[in-house]
Amino acid sequence: MRPYSGERLCRRCFFRSIEDRVRTAISKYEMLRLDDKIMVAVSGGKDSVTLLHILTNIEKAFPKANVCAVTVDEGIRGYRDEALKVAAKNCRKVGVRHVVVSFKEMYGYKLDEIVAMAREEELTPCSYCGVLRRRALNVAAREADADKLATAHNLDDEAQTIMLNIIHGDAPRIARVKPALDEVHPRLIRRIKPLCEVPEREVALYAYLKKIEFQSVPCPYARTALRSDIRTMLNRIEERHPGIKFTIFKSIEKIRPALEILAEKAEIQDCKMCGEPTVGEICKPCQMLRGLSILI
Amino acid sequence: MRPYSGERLCRRCFFRSIEDRVRTAISKYEMLRLDDKIMVAVSGGKDSVTLLHILTNIEKAFPKANVCAVTVDEGIRGYRDEALKVAAKNCRKVGVRHVVVSFKEMYGYKLDEIVAMAREEELTPCSYCGVLRRRALNVAAREADADKLATAHNLDDEAQTIMLNIIHGDAPRIARVKPALDEVHPRLIRRIKPLCEVPEREVALYAYLKKIEFQSVPCPYARTALRSDIRTMLNRIEERHPGIKFTIFKSIEKIRPALEILAEKAEIQDCKMCGEPTVGEICKPCQMLRGLSILI
Repeated sequence: MRPYSGERLCRRCFFRSIEDRVRTAISKYEMLRLDDKIMVAVSGGKDSVTLLHILTNIEKAFPKANVCAVTVDEGIRGYRDEALKVAAKNCRKVGVRHVVVSFKEMYGYKLDEIVAMAREEELTPCSYCGVLRRRALNVAAREADADKLATAHNLDDEAQTIMLNIIHGDAPRIARVKPALDEVHPRLIRRIKPLCEVPEREVALYAYLKKIEFQSVPCPYARTALRSDIRTMLNRIEERHPGIKFTIFKSIEKIRPALEILAEKAEIQDCKMCGEPTVGEICKPCQMLRGLSILI
Repeated sequence: MRPYSGERLCRRCFFRSIEDRVRTAISKYEMLRLDDKIMVAVSGGKDSVTLLHILTNIEKAFPKANVCAVTVDEGIRGYRDEALKVAAKNCRKVGVRHVVVSFKEMYGYKLDEIVAMAREEELTPCSYCGVLRRRALNVAAREADADKLATAHNLDDEAQTIMLNIIHGDAPRIARVKPALDEVHPRLIRRIKPLCEVPEREVALYAYLKKIEFQSVPCPYARTALRSDIRTMLNRIEERHPGIKFTIFKSIEKIRPALEILAEKAEIQDCKMCGEPTVGEICKPCQMLRGLSILI
């Protein structure tokens, strides 16, 4: 049962309702063109594996479109190896090409090593991982000649990010919580979030009922983040007031136009260290690696 | 000790720090002029009674300024009578005139009666109370010839309201969470919130250490509101991440200019039923009273 709508659906109607919601989001937010080459970021967790299954299914109706997948191996002991296998297995199952890129080969160090080097720094493991992973995904998508990079952010993720930005004192960043990012530079592959209107528990239920294999071990670093406190709190409030995750998401849509005017369109230029497109002279990944004395 | 700053203050320095923070907010947000007649909304709770003490103290340095107080008697059995006595006692103590206005005399019904009549309606007791109290305060301030109406909203209240607006799906309303409201109509007395940068627990500690008498019974209707869930959640997060209430407040200051552009300045006109200034043809209080068949 869906507490926020009162619906009770049978298995088949539930599947269709999730798939329809993804299709609706894709067309409403103009995520895809008929002939797009789509790269799905597949971590191996329930959200990304489910997205892979739904997208390859939808794509069958569009002969000119094309789906492939990428997994980033951050180098997290006891976590990523298993996930990599699961990701590869799912890609074989749906018949798409699977690319793996690793922090080790891109940056010279695994995340575990970076975290060990960063002990004294103020940044959390998730800060390093987020910045370096985003870069890795963009490079992989570009090298695969993809038009779009699909990530599996669900409704819960988006509601959490909105709250996180406000609580972090960075409300203007809310403008970036968008189902489909604008084209800002030819070498920045446009990111899309086809699951943005599906609540996390429905993604989980879909994966479970479809018997989709996924990795369920949580990341060992996840607990350190403010985000997990926000997740808990939103789930508690959602339980007592069903539908608030949707209203948070819709709420921000109303102010996004104003926020986008506020955020002057920053000029994208080439990073002076690595040449990747960035705002400012030196990109975030290079700043981080320099902070760790990996780059000088 | 203040977990968000690490300060440990003695009693005297703590008092001064609170009073300084109120003074700073007053000047930073241009809340008061030297010759303002200020009406303080005093419910009898710790926040409003503390505000009354601090403001009358600050006002001593400004001979042309003037402070008085107003209490709204909503008509809540087992709650308001005691609060009224406490409010009156505090006003005598600081030597200011005390005005009491009641729902019964303004609208013909006590809140308890309105809540009983509204059983079938969707609105919560707090919705009725909020709208009708705001109107009552404005009328009282105007009749007392006040230039400003000071309310005791503290930092926690402001952070909660921000979250509430987002969760309710009404993010554009965040623009109205302001320390000092703009002048929009000569018959709408400008509201100011001198405690907006003082956390609730510090207001409570100030009142306790100063031995200020206040009513501590919570409103019997308070539990029904989403706000109390948000309060709990913010307190939980604040405990683990000290300072988040400040960052939420500051966060919104960064996007307020954009939100204010979004919210077109609505034209204020006279309500067709009661003549009070309002946006649209019929004001919110009249709409509510009509919904209850009190007005036809």
